[in-house]
Amino acid sequence: MNFSSKLLEDAVNEFSKLPGVGQKTALRLVLHLLNKEQEEVNQFGNTFIKLKQQIKHCSTCHNISDYAVCEICTSPKRDKETICVVEDTRDVMAIENTGQYFGVYHVLGGLISPMDGIGPSDLFIDGLIVRMAAGGIKEVILALSPNMEGDTTLFYLYKRLKEFNVPVTTIARGIAFGGELEYTDEITLGRSIVTRVPYETAMMK
Amino acid sequence: MNFSSKLLEDAVNEFSKLPGVGQKTALRLVLHLLNKEQEEVNQFGNTFIKLKQQIKHCSTCHNISDYAVCEICTSPKRDKETICVVEDTRDVMAIENTGQYFGVYHVLGGLISPMDGIGPSDLFIDGLIVRMAAGGIKEVILALSPNMEGDTTLFYLYKRLKEFNVPVTTIARGIAFGGELEYTDEITLGRSIVTRVPYETAMMK
Ligand SMILES: [Zn+2]
Ligand SMILES: [Zn+2]
Repeated sequence: MNFSSKLLEDAVNEFSKLPGVGQKTALRLVLHLLNKEQEEVNQFGNTFIKLKQQIKHCSTCHNISDYAVCEICTSPKRDKETICVVEDTRDVMAIENTGQYFGVYHVLGGLISPMDGIGPSDLFIDGLIVRMAAGGIKEVILALSPNMEGDTTLFYLYKRLKEFNVPVTTIARGIAFGGELEYTDEITLGRSIVTRVPYETAMMK
Repeated sequence: MNFSSKLLEDAVNEFSKLPGVGQKTALRLVLHLLNKEQEEVNQFGNTFIKLKQQIKHCSTCHNISDYAVCEICTSPKRDKETICVVEDTRDVMAIENTGQYFGVYHVLGGLISPMDGIGPSDLFIDGLIVRMAAGGIKEVILALSPNMEGDTTLFYLYKRLKEFNVPVTTIARGIAFGGELEYTDEITLGRSIVTRVPYETAMMK
């Protein structure tokens, strides 16, 4: 692209770094921003800077939070004896949206992926083991996307959790292999939590 | 969406204000940014603020520029006697990309659209009249997208430019009605500039 302005080019390049945003889309977005007032553009830019500066991860469940411990972990209405293990905060949001789950969460921050060089130590798994060791947990629900990385992580977690003698379940496979948990419709996702089955049953052919 | 963080929600809402960006896409982009270092996020946010603060419009052609007069208008290599009139800076970039045009530009900053309440006075048309009145122009090429707004603007400009007795041409209609000029492939767009025809010929059935 031949840019008439270095400032414009810089701004387009910043948007282009984002996943799934091509140069033409980036240019369209930048020109849209340019039509806004300075104050609105300041707010746009500063919102992300502030987010990065102030955002926390809950010290208990590792979910993104504005506080040291998140609102789900501190809520007296939530069942602290059931932990739902998910990949990231988008999955927490998707499950919360179903209105079918009343326990707490544990956010791994990713899935085991040897291809991408992501091993168990790159995930927030030790924090889960600490919670299990503290006792009082009656069930662990593994709610991971049904793909290669999800299954690998499922298998790894199942082995690690065995020593605690707590039922480990997985959400029902209503979702096709290769699908993304976060894009599943509310009804399917909600039902798959209600009809969750023991890990052994889920993994049987 | 149930956000676990107000900071996160604010950031997602900022992205969602952009055209064509839904909440799920916005969330994906924000989480991508959150995985970056603080310095990179600062650069992301500050680039747009700086762009808006420092960007100029060329006082001659109204194209986006880092300087008071743009690099095309000041280039000794460009033919100052031919003006190509376009909707916005994306069209300048698209035409520059063809390598088929060596004149200068005039950027209207939009198209006449009664539906959207955009009239001639909302566009940078007076600047074009000033340039024409100054003399020395041998041809005006109207390179507007071939849709309703483009045709309306074409007709309006043709009437305004008549008094100067300078040939007014339009780029050849190689582009289907309803198409967007900026998304046209280089070959078609380049050829349509080379085979430009007088306005009267173009508008004949
Ligand atoms: Zn928490
Ligand atoms: Zn200029």
